[in-house]
Amino acid sequence: MSLARVQFFSISLDGFGTGDVQSLEAPFGHAGERLHEWMFVTRSWHERVGEPGGTGGIDDAFLRLHDRGIGAEIMGAGKFGPPGWHENPEWQGWWGPNPPFHTPTFVLTHHPRPSIEMEGGTTFHFIDASPAEALEAAREAAGGQDVRLGGGVTMIRDFLAAGLVDHMHIAVVPILLGRGKRLWDGLEGLEKDYAIEATSSPNGVTHVTFTRSAV
Amino acid sequence: MSLARVQFFSISLDGFGTGDVQSLEAPFGHAGERLHEWMFVTRSWHERVGEPGGTGGIDDAFLRLHDRGIGAEIMGAGKFGPPGWHENPEWQGWWGPNPPFHTPTFVLTHHPRPSIEMEGGTTFHFIDASPAEALEAAREAAGGQDVRLGGGVTMIRDFLAAGLVDHMHIAVVPILLGRGKRLWDGLEGLEKDYAIEATSSPNGVTHVTFTRSAV
Repeated sequence: MSLARVQFFSISLDGFGTGDVQSLEAPFGHAGERLHEWMFVTRSWHERVGEPGGTGGIDDAFLRLHDRGIGAEIMGAGKFGPPGWHENPEWQGWWGPNPPFHTPTFVLTHHPRPSIEMEGGTTFHFIDASPAEALEAAREAAGGQDVRLGGGVTMIRDFLAAGLVDHMHIAVVPILLGRGKRLWDGLEGLEKDYAIEATSSPNGVTHVTFTRSAV
Repeated sequence: MSLARVQFFSISLDGFGTGDVQSLEAPFGHAGERLHEWMFVTRSWHERVGEPGGTGGIDDAFLRLHDRGIGAEIMGAGKFGPPGWHENPEWQGWWGPNPPFHTPTFVLTHHPRPSIEMEGGTTFHFIDASPAEALEAAREAAGGQDVRLGGGVTMIRDFLAAGLVDHMHIAVVPILLGRGKRLWDGLEGLEKDYAIEATSSPNGVTHVTFTRSAV
């Protein structure tokens, strides 16, 4: 069975997945990279950017699940670019010529454009679709593998609200952002559909996993 | 030094310390006792209610810090009784004749009344005071021991905002309440003043401790 999975989406202790205000210069607003520092010190991140060393504990283990068994990604418009990117025909995402997805990647947008084939196996497809329609398209492209739900906040919340998430890994970072976009809004009772586990890292991050009971 | 400590205050994963709507029948609103079930299975809770057995792991260890070294408590009006309790001259709290505080206990209220001496060492004092004034009074009554900041949500938030909390233990319970009172509102950047540690329990609860750097 092809699962729909969220892998290592980071939020603050007060529930914000991004800060205010997002822009080209500040993709996560006032949060900067504080939600992601726990990743940058791991071996898997170091490998990704071509550096030696890095930690090999629980944070690294969770990070390595990002690509495993994934055949396609769906991301929200807010992950692909800063507000207004759809008005820039040259915009090809934040990640340079070789984005870290390496699969078909579906970008949800109200302004579809032609697909872009990047280096390394990533092809961006731009679709104006409901969560269920997007998941169907991504599953087809994934060739029997899982589909990663890549974020941002609004996109994950929409998929959760639609009951389309099979597995989710949330990293709760011990900072209080105070403002931005909240992941948990409107999801009262979500725990009823999932087995939830929490595992703390020595660095203060807590990895919370949601696994749908029926999966 | 006499510290101001929050011990085992429970919140949901989405940050609510109590649900909607609080009443005599439902002290935690729609949350019921779901924020506190993790406590009821521990040895220390069983001892408190005179039952054998119970778990002896991390949850029990954190629970046992409730009384250790505490010489006085401060609580908000919302912890002492349901909305409107101040209009009932007979109201003596939720806890029966022998409340589980066993020290002078200061209730913050805009409607002070005479102190009530209960069994077991608890004396309720009713004061209309700022956080700093209340802490000063409680410290005096604590005889050199620590002061427990007992909650609820609004009271803890007010003491945090005033910079008066030296140590805090928050239990994050893996449920999404969706509504109620949020603990973290208005506390952006709180982490700057604290060393924060997170420890997960096998039951999915994560114990997050804040220790003021200067303490």
